[in-house]
Formats: sequence, structure tokens, C-alpha cells
Amino acid sequence: MLTFHHCPQTRSSSVRWLLEELGVDYTVERVDLRAEGGVPDAYRAVQPHKKVPAIIHDGVTVTERSAITIYLCDAFPEAGLAPAIGDPRRGPYLSWLAYSDAVMDPNIAARFNKWQYDARTVSFGTFEDMLAHVERTLAAHDYVTGDTFTAADVQVGSLLNWTVRVFKLVPESPAIGAYLDRLQAREAFQRAQALDAA
Amino acid sequence: MLTFHHCPQTRSSSVRWLLEELGVDYTVERVDLRAEGGVPDAYRAVQPHKKVPAIIHDGVTVTERSAITIYLCDAFPEAGLAPAIGDPRRGPYLSWLAYSDAVMDPNIAARFNKWQYDARTVSFGTFEDMLAHVERTLAAHDYVTGDTFTAADVQVGSLLNWTVRVFKLVPESPAIGAYLDRLQAREAFQRAQALDAA
Ligand SMILES: N[C@@H](CCC(=O)N[C@@H](CS)C(=O)NCC(=O)O)C(=O)O
Ligand SMILES: N[C@@H](CCC(=O)N[C@@H](CS)C(=O)NCC(=O)O)C(=O)O
Repeated sequence: MLTFHHCPQTRSSSVRWLLEELGVDYTVERVDLRAEGGVPDAYRAVQPHKKVPAIIHDGVTVTERSAITIYLCDAFPEAGLAPAIGDPRRGPYLSWLAYSDAVMDPNIAARFNKWQYDARTVSFGTFEDMLAHVERTLAAHDYVTGDTFTAADVQVGSLLNWTVRVFKLVPESPAIGAYLDRLQAREAFQRAQALDAA
Repeated sequence: MLTFHHCPQTRSSSVRWLLEELGVDYTVERVDLRAEGGVPDAYRAVQPHKKVPAIIHDGVTVTERSAITIYLCDAFPEAGLAPAIGDPRRGPYLSWLAYSDAVMDPNIAARFNKWQYDARTVSFGTFEDMLAHVERTLAAHDYVTGDTFTAADVQVGSLLNWTVRVFKLVPESPAIGAYLDRLQAREAFQRAQALDAA
């Protein structure tokens, strides 16, 4: 039993894409972020900030995109979306997932909101260092952990899409453009997009 | 072979505490964050923002505190610091680790720097929701995932220590105070503190 708390065309869409990549059955519980009066307070028992996404799998609630990704790919290993424990790619896989939530997303918010701060005191550092890291990685390989697609690409690719194609915070570089094209050509991505639009 | 890139008395101290909890052998590679002229640029190949912590385990580089924690506890399961895949506590364990880096740390920075922003557009939401979630959790259980200590408590406890005892951003509540006392009474915590001070 897998329930997915979701609002279409938001940050939880990256988890819908992941669920489509996994090919598992799930039920969508729609959270209306634009509801008059806001999201009901009861939802806080599922997600403490009343945000999406959240999943409930066999009675276990999991929140935070990177945690949901790690949890689901380990629970459904037959999909082959995550390097197993002991595989040397497990390290970069986990690092990129943590990085997407804890460094990339706050940097996008900081750039969007034009916050001024001393980057040495802030755990997410600078937008420039983040973009340089992404560029260096994608110049060397087709996917963030090397030559094969993993669930880390779902999260990193979703955030890069917001950065260069939705918010247009920086011009789209050839490496990022090719990466996004590669990801967005995937059937599971297109299925998730179509489901969100419906 | 385990190398730990570290600067004492910074965010990487939580990983030193974790290494002491694991009881594994490791070599410290000191990164001098206060060096004149800054950290050498060559270090960017290890940590893309020239920050600490980073570990190199059998040739695999792992960055980001939550990723390092998940990686190490799965690599050394005999220490019993992480619920295994399939254990229902695995969900909250992963969620709390992601939450500590992606929600707690940026919220502490935002409060410290007095940033103004619309919390609904920002992935880390509000400091008040974060604190309420911590309080609710610790009112119900001794540790964030329930009645037993896990590596998630190392990361959450380290950040709460900065919040209430170092920066004093909010008064120390009884639940948080008792939690910190419980954690800081641990031998591994005290060993890590003594090593950092030396
Ligand atoms: N830390 C959460 C944050 C997710 C998030 O920011 N969700 C947004 C969706 S765009 C949300 O629910 N915002 C609505 C609100 O805060 O009211 C995660 O990474 O899973
Ligand atoms: N996102 C990293 C950030 C760690 C971090 O913020 N490290 C600080 C230590 S307090 C640092 O190295 N700051 C020095 C600098 O940026 O020059 C993580 O969670 O592991």
C-alpha cells in the first residue's frame, strides 16, 4: 500500500516522476496548496510544514524528497534506480540526493529572493559554486553519478529544470540543456507530466 | 581505509561524533577554514564548495552530512546506529536526516540572518514550524525516531545544540534540554569533543 500526498506542478512532481520510473502502484491523495483558508491543520501529522510531497508506505510515513527517494528505491530494488549498499556509486548517489535538497534548492531560493549573506557561514554556500559543480559533473558524464541514470537524476534534473527553464535564473548551458533533454525524453517523465496536467 | 576531512568545532564535528559512535578507525585530514588566502582550490575536487565535512572510504568520496551518515551507518551495520532497509523505522530515520540538513540548518541560518521571505515558496518553510515539529517529536519519545538512539539524533542533536546553547536563538525548552543532556552524556560525544578541543 503506497499513498502519495501530492499537488500537481509543484516540488512534489519530482516524486511523481520517480514513482512512474519505479513502475509501482500508488494512490494519489491530493493536497490543495491553493485552498481557501490553507491546507487543513490535520495534514501536519503527515508533513510538519503542511508541504508536499509525503508518502505513506505500509503504514510508514516518509517526508522530504531525498528521504522519499532513498526509501522507495531501496524498497523496490528491482527497478534498478539506486546503487545498492556496497556499490561504489552509492556514495555519490546519496551525496547528490542530499545536495539537491540541502544545497541546490535553498540556493535557487536565495538567488530568486536576492538574499545577501556570508556564504561561508551558510550550509548551502553559493549559487556559483553549485552551478560550477553541476557543470563540471555533466561535462564529464551523462548522469550525476556517472554513465547510468539513477533516481538522483530525477531530483537534480527537476531542480535544474526550475532553474534554467522555468525561472530562467541563468542561461541554459549546452551541458545542462543536453542533460535535461536526455531526462525529459524518458517515458516515465512524460507520463508524470501528462498525469499532472490532467 | 577511511579519511575524514574535518575542521574542529564546526559543522563537521557532528560527523566526528558519528565516527566515534561507530567505533571505526579513521584518519583526520584537517581543513583549515581560517587559513590565510582560504582553503586551497585543489580541495574543491573533494568538496565542491570547499566546505567540511567530507569522507573518503575505500576510494569513494562522500559529501553532505546526511549522505555521509546514511552511507557510513549502512557500511558498518554492526554498530546498530541505523534501522536496516525493511525496518519500519527506516522511513523516519531517513526523513529526519534529510530534514536536519535541508530544513533545520537553513532555518537556523535564516533566523540568524533575519531574512524575510514567503515561507510557502521556500523548501525549508518556517523556523516556528521546525521548532514545533522538534518539540512534538521529543514530547512523545526520547529520540527522534522513537525510543532508541540512532545516527539521526547525532545530526539533529548537533543542530539543536547550535540553536539553543550556542546561538541561543530561542530559549531552551525542557524537552530539548533533556534531549541534549541525554545525547551529551554519551561517551562517544564526549570523546569527539575532547578530540576537537585537543
Ligand atoms: N522540505 C520539503 C519541501 C517541499 C516543498 O517545498 N513543497 C512545496 C511545494 S512547491 C510546498 O508544499 N509549498 C506549499 C506551502 O508551503 O504552503 C521537501 O524537500 O520535501
Ligand atoms: N552542505 C554541507 C555544508 C557544511 C558546512 O556548512 N560546512 C561549514 C562548516 S561550519 C564550512 O565548511 N564552512 C566554511 C566555508 O564555507 O568556507 C553539509 O551539510 O555537509
